[in-house]
Amino acid sequence: MLDLSTIRGLLIDIDGTLLRGRLPLPGMREIFTFCREHKIKTCITSNNSVTTTEQMQQRFARMGVELEENEIVTSSVATCHYLRRNFPQGGLAYVIGQQGIFTAVNKAGLEVVDNGHQPVDVVVVGGDYQLTYEKLKNACLHIRRGAKFIGTNPDVVYPAEEGFLPETGTTLAALRAATGVEPMVIGKPEKYLFESALLQLQLPVGETAMLGDRLDTDVLGAKRIGMAAILVETGIDNESSAQASETVPDLIVKDLPDLMERWQAFF
Amino acid sequence: MLDLSTIRGLLIDIDGTLLRGRLPLPGMREIFTFCREHKIKTCITSNNSVTTTEQMQQRFARMGVELEENEIVTSSVATCHYLRRNFPQGGLAYVIGQQGIFTAVNKAGLEVVDNGHQPVDVVVVGGDYQLTYEKLKNACLHIRRGAKFIGTNPDVVYPAEEGFLPETGTTLAALRAATGVEPMVIGKPEKYLFESALLQLQLPVGETAMLGDRLDTDVLGAKRIGMAAILVETGIDNESSAQASETVPDLIVKDLPDLMERWQAFF
Repeated sequence: MLDLSTIRGLLIDIDGTLLRGRLPLPGMREIFTFCREHKIKTCITSNNSVTTTEQMQQRFARMGVELEENEIVTSSVATCHYLRRNFPQGGLAYVIGQQGIFTAVNKAGLEVVDNGHQPVDVVVVGGDYQLTYEKLKNACLHIRRGAKFIGTNPDVVYPAEEGFLPETGTTLAALRAATGVEPMVIGKPEKYLFESALLQLQLPVGETAMLGDRLDTDVLGAKRIGMAAILVETGIDNESSAQASETVPDLIVKDLPDLMERWQAFF
Repeated sequence: MLDLSTIRGLLIDIDGTLLRGRLPLPGMREIFTFCREHKIKTCITSNNSVTTTEQMQQRFARMGVELEENEIVTSSVATCHYLRRNFPQGGLAYVIGQQGIFTAVNKAGLEVVDNGHQPVDVVVVGGDYQLTYEKLKNACLHIRRGAKFIGTNPDVVYPAEEGFLPETGTTLAALRAATGVEPMVIGKPEKYLFESALLQLQLPVGETAMLGDRLDTDVLGAKRIGMAAILVETGIDNESSAQASETVPDLIVKDLPDLMERWQAFF
């Protein structure tokens, strides 16, 4: 059982945790107020690689929540941190993706190449609703020539009004098939997104918790790096799927108000 | 050891067997003359799904070889036969690919739908140098809705001047990831292409042989349906790779003139 009194920082998933589709879930605004009152640092962590940090701030501001830049770690932001650590001298990158990942790659100090023949150091693949054969071809040529192959997030689909639509993981599967090379993936449940968020919070892993609705990303990723995990039952998983799983959260709460009520008892 | 005197029909691979790139290999014209003189039926069998039968006839005519329509079975032609057998009443199809496969689907009596919302019976995926996110999305929606998922050929790349470029198998990997559904594949080494060629030749499997340069497609596919396989060493594989493999050809020849010399001894 999780001792909530030890938690000084909270990593928070978006879809199924704070929002359902575009709508805020109960307690969405209040959880931020609660954390600020009790000096618990927060960091939004999302596998989304399409949206920029600024767009994410605007999105939350429209719902009444003001977030600092360092309170948001998307898979693009974590990719930026990873690139900065691994290519401190800069370098050339071929990018498949939308604004979020292009901004992140530039911010990491890498120059983006837009063709398949000029050798690059790294191919970075994020979600791209304008994916073309040309882009797959260029990435394939670069990776086969030895460029490092990085994927922002492993999600193969995302839920939309029309149904489940192809996401980054689908493009990664195509390029894995075409090259025989396994991508290095940044987003949940891999560790890089969590590590980026910890660096933003400037807290040790033992004083933080991940709050999310999915066992296979939020909880699994947190447990892999020894972080506490709180499962909230407003999205994909719940107590019964958790009991059937090998991935065990440290705490299960019904919704955000339920979490705040339990946490309040410690102050 | 193969008794060549029993062979009344020859299935012939193109790349690495008849041609290297766009250039004819030694004996390319002569093998057809030889077979016609000795009343051995021939059928070109290729995993190519992009080229129509007519375009293939023109391509060979320019190199001095006249082929009848029924002497060519591409993976698109085999897909047409498969669709005709499995959708005898016709139906609706969503198609990713180029002219070869669109022609084949129409010839099979199916109507092609160009969007993701009108329910279809089958999604047919071939090589497409104009692949887009929109096409992947539509195919993903159809397959998740229960449409049968067919791939013309499993090849993940094809050799081009620029390097190895994404082929049908890459698109199949993307859609497999996005849907969790395994495609039914028509081309070599699967049996459907061979079965189509046998129907065109109107010969039993015991009187035919597959002639090709690859163990993992030509030889493996032939052996799977009990057909004799002749490996020619002008492409990918040779005697030493055959010895290291579990896939054993019935005969290995240096090149097409070598095959004709051995075969001539039986007449």
